[in-house]
Amino acid sequence: MEKAYLLLNHGPTVLISCAYGDERNVIAAGWCTVLDYTPARVLVILDKQGYSHQLIKKSGEFVMMLPSKAMAKLVLQVGACTGSAVDKFAAFDMPILPAKTVVAPLINGCLAFLECKLIDEPHNQDTYDLYIGEVTCAWADPRVFSNGRWHIKDESLRSIHYQAGGQFFAIGDSFQVEE
Amino acid sequence: MEKAYLLLNHGPTVLISCAYGDERNVIAAGWCTVLDYTPARVLVILDKQGYSHQLIKKSGEFVMMLPSKAMAKLVLQVGACTGSAVDKFAAFDMPILPAKTVVAPLINGCLAFLECKLIDEPHNQDTYDLYIGEVTCAWADPRVFSNGRWHIKDESLRSIHYQAGGQFFAIGDSFQVEE
Repeated sequence: MEKAYLLLNHGPTVLISCAYGDERNVIAAGWCTVLDYTPARVLVILDKQGYSHQLIKKSGEFVMMLPSKAMAKLVLQVGACTGSAVDKFAAFDMPILPAKTVVAPLINGCLAFLECKLIDEPHNQDTYDLYIGEVTCAWADPRVFSNGRWHIKDESLRSIHYQAGGQFFAIGDSFQVEE
Repeated sequence: MEKAYLLLNHGPTVLISCAYGDERNVIAAGWCTVLDYTPARVLVILDKQGYSHQLIKKSGEFVMMLPSKAMAKLVLQVGACTGSAVDKFAAFDMPILPAKTVVAPLINGCLAFLECKLIDEPHNQDTYDLYIGEVTCAWADPRVFSNGRWHIKDESLRSIHYQAGGQFFAIGDSFQVEE
């Protein structure tokens, strides 16, 4: 039972950035999903650590980013240290970009950005570490996403799905099914 | 913005079965994730349709199943009709197995089963169609999962990740990253 989570642990891994005042942070999260189409909403479960929770609660916003396979090492690095002691953006020399609708920065090279305003749900946040965001701006790299569909051909641009112990899956090829 | 959900729409697609009294149903869901390790908890967003919601609320349980690529057509079929009018298990000739801890049936051939007791969260259920389950029994096919890791080699046994319009991604190959 303590490994049951692994059975569903290969949704896309995301990076979550947040900022409040002079503070900013980025963390890795393996547990996220879409919550609704309209309004566009997403949810993410944040690891038990106070720093990002605080920044997100205080600022009421975050950015969900989809890293590529080329960024897998960065994802591990970001997940292995706490932002309360170090500015990870500087420590790992991340190329950042300003977001359009939130203060938290974007990390250049990601396949997609979802800028989000936090929907205040204290019970979900406190009980489950579950944060719900309403998407205020969305962008995807046109090399891999256009006309509403992913079309990832380049190996280094595959989305990644964390398993455990430094092991990821890359997303595979697409296939069409007729009913 | 109305396509923002597609940016994260490739977590694993699951089948959700439920039963209450003589009624039973199975639906497809693309939006699910893990919620916690211990106790093992998962969450799933269910499409707006009353039948499965009712069965899950009345029975307080459901099964989350991970279909293989070989089952992709079945996933589409299950998602394209409502169980209030037809017994999908019979209509699509699904080989079912009894679960160990819940009444809802398992569909033979899936890569993993997560039997779940519903955690009663009326606000999440009513506002977001978000259902949280505590895992009471978990099983994965040892051909593709053992010692706490997925190792999917056979093309037909890859997990599948729904995009839209009958198009899926299969999960790709795993890779190891050293920090």
